[in-house]
Amino acid sequence: MVHFRRKLLSHGGLLRQLKQHIRWSSSLKIRNDEVVSPDRSFKYADLSVRLAAPHQLHPKPEVSALSFGKYFTDHMLKVFYYEALGGWQTPEITPLENLVLHPAAKVLHYAVELFEGMKAYRGVDGKIRLFRPDLNMDRMNASALRSGLPTFNSTELINCINRLISIDQEWVPHSEASSLYIRPTLIGIDPTLGVASSESALLYVILCPVGSYFKTSSEQEGVSLLADPRYTRAWPGGCGDRKMGSNYAPTIQIQREALEKGLQQVLWLYGDDDQLTEVGTMNIFMFYINENGEKELITPPLNGLILPGITRQSILTLSREWGQFKVSERVITMQEVCRLLSENRLLELFGAGTACVVSPISYIKYIDQGLHIPTMEQPNPVFKMFLKHLTEIQYGYLPNHPWAFPLD
Amino acid sequence: MVHFRRKLLSHGGLLRQLKQHIRWSSSLKIRNDEVVSPDRSFKYADLSVRLAAPHQLHPKPEVSALSFGKYFTDHMLKVFYYEALGGWQTPEITPLENLVLHPAAKVLHYAVELFEGMKAYRGVDGKIRLFRPDLNMDRMNASALRSGLPTFNSTELINCINRLISIDQEWVPHSEASSLYIRPTLIGIDPTLGVASSESALLYVILCPVGSYFKTSSEQEGVSLLADPRYTRAWPGGCGDRKMGSNYAPTIQIQREALEKGLQQVLWLYGDDDQLTEVGTMNIFMFYINENGEKELITPPLNGLILPGITRQSILTLSREWGQFKVSERVITMQEVCRLLSENRLLELFGAGTACVVSPISYIKYIDQGLHIPTMEQPNPVFKMFLKHLTEIQYGYLPNHPWAFPLD
Repeated sequence: MVHFRRKLLSHGGLLRQLKQHIRWSSSLKIRNDEVVSPDRSFKYADLSVRLAAPHQLHPKPEVSALSFGKYFTDHMLKVFYYEALGGWQTPEITPLENLVLHPAAKVLHYAVELFEGMKAYRGVDGKIRLFRPDLNMDRMNASALRSGLPTFNSTELINCINRLISIDQEWVPHSEASSLYIRPTLIGIDPTLGVASSESALLYVILCPVGSYFKTSSEQEGVSLLADPRYTRAWPGGCGDRKMGSNYAPTIQIQREALEKGLQQVLWLYGDDDQLTEVGTMNIFMFYINENGEKELITPPLNGLILPGITRQSILTLSREWGQFKVSERVITMQEVCRLLSENRLLELFGAGTACVVSPISYIKYIDQGLHIPTMEQPNPVFKMFLKHLTEIQYGYLPNHPWAFPLD
Repeated sequence: MVHFRRKLLSHGGLLRQLKQHIRWSSSLKIRNDEVVSPDRSFKYADLSVRLAAPHQLHPKPEVSALSFGKYFTDHMLKVFYYEALGGWQTPEITPLENLVLHPAAKVLHYAVELFEGMKAYRGVDGKIRLFRPDLNMDRMNASALRSGLPTFNSTELINCINRLISIDQEWVPHSEASSLYIRPTLIGIDPTLGVASSESALLYVILCPVGSYFKTSSEQEGVSLLADPRYTRAWPGGCGDRKMGSNYAPTIQIQREALEKGLQQVLWLYGDDDQLTEVGTMNIFMFYINENGEKELITPPLNGLILPGITRQSILTLSREWGQFKVSERVITMQEVCRLLSENRLLELFGAGTACVVSPISYIKYIDQGLHIPTMEQPNPVFKMFLKHLTEIQYGYLPNHPWAFPLD
């Protein structure tokens, strides 16, 4: 984590020296430790639990019927925040229930909302594990700061989430093709129409057993992408590096356009040189043969346009530990992709994120070109090495790994 | 309205020819008449009304105590949309009540939400009038298309809103310093976590009597602005020209930063040349003496970065009708503002929007410079002419004006 933060700061330092990048520096301040003050947090020790009555329990769906984010478990975690009442209230676990919001609640008008995506995995040893939840909590606090929403102590929330999962532990699928998706959410609920910071908020966590994010078998075939330079996901001086709801609504119409063209996801480009920034809701990686004939893995740098993904960070760290190929964080352009393809030097393109883990790319529709990407034709693709290694950590094949957080 | 749309298209035509502006064209398609199909709308004729019981009625606040968006009237309008049930359901007026939402509702995670801002005015003749609500409805449908939310027939919603206002008509303040603010809102409510178009939605309208948007007497003193080139409100290929919730959350932290520096609003800049785009939640206008020694009014063009404001459009039309000075829609840069100030050629800067009507600007903090803007020192400022004329239309001093829509 220390490494993670230092990385961001060093980018900030470099960029601040460049006049044309002045806009970028602001979004590199990932957190301000004075503002994330642990003593202004709710406490796990105060957690109250109200269990669902037997008749309120829901039947668990078949693992084979799971799709992404459709079925929810029996309980949820809620923590209210009221500035006027001293801030965070006591956390509570309750049966999963509807939220009751004033129609003027800021979240419904000005998108005062942010979320995280995490998973719990049932391991080969029967233990349930989280994967690097501390990084999700840090990112959630960074999003809260950028949104005018209250921050909290990471460990307190992890402990509350662990308790919630242990109550609903029978919902963690008994399958390595599935897991329990965890959705911490923080919304501004002031019932006033001024565009301003929130004096009241609700942090809640819901859980859903999930199968594969994509409906087709993308692991076998690779996903197809629409790369349309007319649309931009994030921009310097904006919030593209925070997991705020406002980054997602603008993408929905473009995603629909991709589906209408028979393509599965959107490849988000930026700038006059059509830089590759993200793919769908994932970070993007390219594995290729560089100018020196070496194999190299690259991904765009955390320059303010890129979500600092936990899977992204883990893949970079693993690659550097393995030392089998060069690893760089630098800008990738569509021109470079086209050139590498024409020279048979592009080996793999893949997305990485919590929902999809690692997702190989096989095709890009770019303006009037259809680009075939040979990711699925490599004899021993690196994306499968990452998928295998991350899965082994998550499902307990590598016991006591520091990235796996078993439930007590 | 026809003029309004033609304006947008002609900008689109010009820009498409410029390679560097390729990203802008997509956001210029304000609406697609094939998609906004009136026969897929709810109908005013189907409206049901459930009035509040006497004990549910709220006391009306004193006009002097009004601030923006804090008090709400006794009733609201609601129309649900369920794709699986054939689309729009029957509209209903009910007592103002909390909304009940599944915690996975898309609006709470991916900012699937948009809104409008309109006002009802109690005229000198006792009649209540709306101001150009047809333009708000067109813009609302344009926002819906961009958000993957259902569209509707404008006239049907205006009729439903008129009925709502007539039920709560005693809430329309008896004062020309106040009005009844109308907030139509459309949110995606599918209880699933995929980032996708909404198959269920809720359109609702709430009303609140409002005084001045700003707390201090900005009409006497002018507002002070923070212009910080590190932050960007909208960008080519984004949604800056739609009234979507996602445009607002990213502004809250910067607005707070302005307040902490003793400044009232943010002046949003864009690009390497620091173009002035919007001010707070308003469009911006500059009145100055041009190269030919003529007085000229300018505002940034609708290039995709600018919200097509109703007040903006009305000011442009009035100016062209009056013919007293030149009127242009073109880019304004901070360099130009500084130069005009140093040559004593900048006469006025002001914001324009429904909430604030016309709001004079007296100071800009720009990087390390404090720029005094002489808006308040002009003997007969144009901003006051616009304010007076718009107020006269809105409050019925100019009877039967085509921009005023009286309630039956």
